[in-house]
Amino acid sequence: MTRSLTILGATGSIGRSTSEVVLAHRDEFRVEAVVGGRDAAALADTAKKLGARFAALADEAGGQALKEALAGTGIDSGAGDAAVIEAAERDADLVLAAISGTAGLRPTHAAMKPGRRLALANKESLVCAGAAFMADARRLRVEIMPVDSEHNALDQALAAGGNKDVEKAIITASGGPFRTWPRERIATASPKEASAHPVWSMGNKINIDSATLMNKGLELIEAHHLFGLEAERLDVLVHPESIVHGLVQWSDGAVTAGLALPDMKVPIANALRHHARLRMDLPRLDLAAIGRLSFERPDEARFPCLTLAKAALRAGGAMPTILNAANEIAVEAYMAGQIGFYAISETVESVCSTFSARKIAAPATVFEALALDEEAREGARRLIPAYTVSTLLSGARKGR
Amino acid sequence: MTRSLTILGATGSIGRSTSEVVLAHRDEFRVEAVVGGRDAAALADTAKKLGARFAALADEAGGQALKEALAGTGIDSGAGDAAVIEAAERDADLVLAAISGTAGLRPTHAAMKPGRRLALANKESLVCAGAAFMADARRLRVEIMPVDSEHNALDQALAAGGNKDVEKAIITASGGPFRTWPRERIATASPKEASAHPVWSMGNKINIDSATLMNKGLELIEAHHLFGLEAERLDVLVHPESIVHGLVQWSDGAVTAGLALPDMKVPIANALRHHARLRMDLPRLDLAAIGRLSFERPDEARFPCLTLAKAALRAGGAMPTILNAANEIAVEAYMAGQIGFYAISETVESVCSTFSARKIAAPATVFEALALDEEAREGARRLIPAYTVSTLLSGARKGR
Repeated sequence: MTRSLTILGATGSIGRSTSEVVLAHRDEFRVEAVVGGRDAAALADTAKKLGARFAALADEAGGQALKEALAGTGIDSGAGDAAVIEAAERDADLVLAAISGTAGLRPTHAAMKPGRRLALANKESLVCAGAAFMADARRLRVEIMPVDSEHNALDQALAAGGNKDVEKAIITASGGPFRTWPRERIATASPKEASAHPVWSMGNKINIDSATLMNKGLELIEAHHLFGLEAERLDVLVHPESIVHGLVQWSDGAVTAGLALPDMKVPIANALRHHARLRMDLPRLDLAAIGRLSFERPDEARFPCLTLAKAALRAGGAMPTILNAANEIAVEAYMAGQIGFYAISETVESVCSTFSARKIAAPATVFEALALDEEAREGARRLIPAYTVSTLLSGARKGR
Repeated sequence: MTRSLTILGATGSIGRSTSEVVLAHRDEFRVEAVVGGRDAAALADTAKKLGARFAALADEAGGQALKEALAGTGIDSGAGDAAVIEAAERDADLVLAAISGTAGLRPTHAAMKPGRRLALANKESLVCAGAAFMADARRLRVEIMPVDSEHNALDQALAAGGNKDVEKAIITASGGPFRTWPRERIATASPKEASAHPVWSMGNKINIDSATLMNKGLELIEAHHLFGLEAERLDVLVHPESIVHGLVQWSDGAVTAGLALPDMKVPIANALRHHARLRMDLPRLDLAAIGRLSFERPDEARFPCLTLAKAALRAGGAMPTILNAANEIAVEAYMAGQIGFYAISETVESVCSTFSARKIAAPATVFEALALDEEAREGARRLIPAYTVSTLLSGARKGR
């Protein structure tokens, strides 16, 4: 049975892997729409390759180039926010939502149509507006299939029992490039060093989040919303080989784990499955060839972002939205060389504590989430100069 | 909701662990009957502790002692084969079948009553008479819950997909006491050395099967029947820590694994669950504390019993019944010091090749299975003297 599919974020890393999965199963999918950011040529190529009916570019300025590149193909196109929303709303059985960052919030939300299946790769939907998204998903009977390797692994493992049987759901972390570094050395790490992710090839921002372990903190928040598990039933385990992605510890002492070689096509194919799994012609996990898997506890003394994210999850309300916004600004400042590595967590902590007294409720809509996100970013931006000065004075940047 | 439970093999290792699970959940189970082998005093104790209504001892000679030990308790008792079958047939929602060896075949089969759930720990039911058992289970709508740690782990992992999605189901082996020994040293190993199982504490026969890896071969045959997977979709992986018990490799490249600390109470509790899992107050698996898990391919050159079992599974028909019977006799002879370690596999291979020309169909009933089992044992017994002599002449036993 052919299902119609729309890909939001078709030209990014997840989108390109999705195209590969779809091309390997041409008879199972008909592509309705593809959405890209700024690269009109790449989007046109993708649309043609997948035989999409509609292509939308977020960048209005690229609209003419997109139209020209698609001339004579019969593929309609559009550019700008409205075109992106149109693409998300067009009839489709299945939408893969992989626009990254808060820019993905509105299109992802627009894709939530009654009875649809949403393969979700946009973290911000759950981190910034998780309560609103999940309420709408329940109301509209939208089935959310997680695409993140960790959440996808948990989703599979959770099939072995009920929510009440879950004692703990554990996501693994590679540990990032600084897993074995002492704190003093991490303090002076350059953005380039922080970007050297040992396993996955991802965007810069995500690489820094992986170095601070904030990515795992954000993933705990996602897992909370996806699986209805409170902070006490969620945990992180460091596993440098990135083969085991998630584990569920059950009330009878058994554990079910989700494993795969680190290739995003595996969780993407899994999230796009219908009744049966999609057969993928990829290398298979060979544990005998790998030989050993190792595990250790995350060291929150060296990676305080994880502590902050757990605290935001426990605090609930708007704290995860604020944490995420502050982190985005702090990471930008770090990547620009304005602040040191530990000023990222210090900025996030300061912004969170400033907002915590207000006890703001969880955003009830995407609009509210975006407004709060902007407010928290502004709060973080105001703090950055303080950290810049102190960092320079302390000479912490001399290691760069 | 209270469910009635009968325990066949209540005084053995699995039976004692089952008692512990039941005593931890007194409000969920009412014990209908308990069955033991020869130890009347232990069986009486178990019956009293669990508040059973009926106790049956296989050994007729112990009947009087059992009756006396239960005098005044209101617990009925019986002894001999008929009493054991009566216990198995009495009304119960759930029967845990843990009588070991072929002695368990008839009582286990008698316990298959319409709509019942059977928690199965008797390997021979599936190894010697798998086709007959599974056909009856389907006909009577008996749900079989595997108790073996490997099959229980697979049963949980298989919840994440359908049979057609399964590319491979893999059971793990600790590797036994000879995992790292060279072949020449294994050849002269004494029964005492072969009995030193690195992880599990089990019966002698099972320990030897663990040293030859025949236990994994038999478990492949069980898995074939339990999960409807042909030989090509079953495999063995050596994993000395015995934490991962089973893995399912799916067609999309994902892998779901079942883990637990090596404590039989975990799979027993899992097999006895109803809608929800039973909450067990046991130590939890802590992968960070364990630190590492290792994996390697089994070396069939040093452990030819695994090759023989795989061949019997592929050959189908009566070959698994014959393999198992020959192995029982060969292991007995090895344990009695009559033959060397590798004469176990040589005996099994000879018996299997003798029978293979006859292309006997899989036993259609337990009666047929037992007759064939006896015939194969007799064939093995006739071969043992040959190996005894050659072993003595070659001096292979001097290492004992």
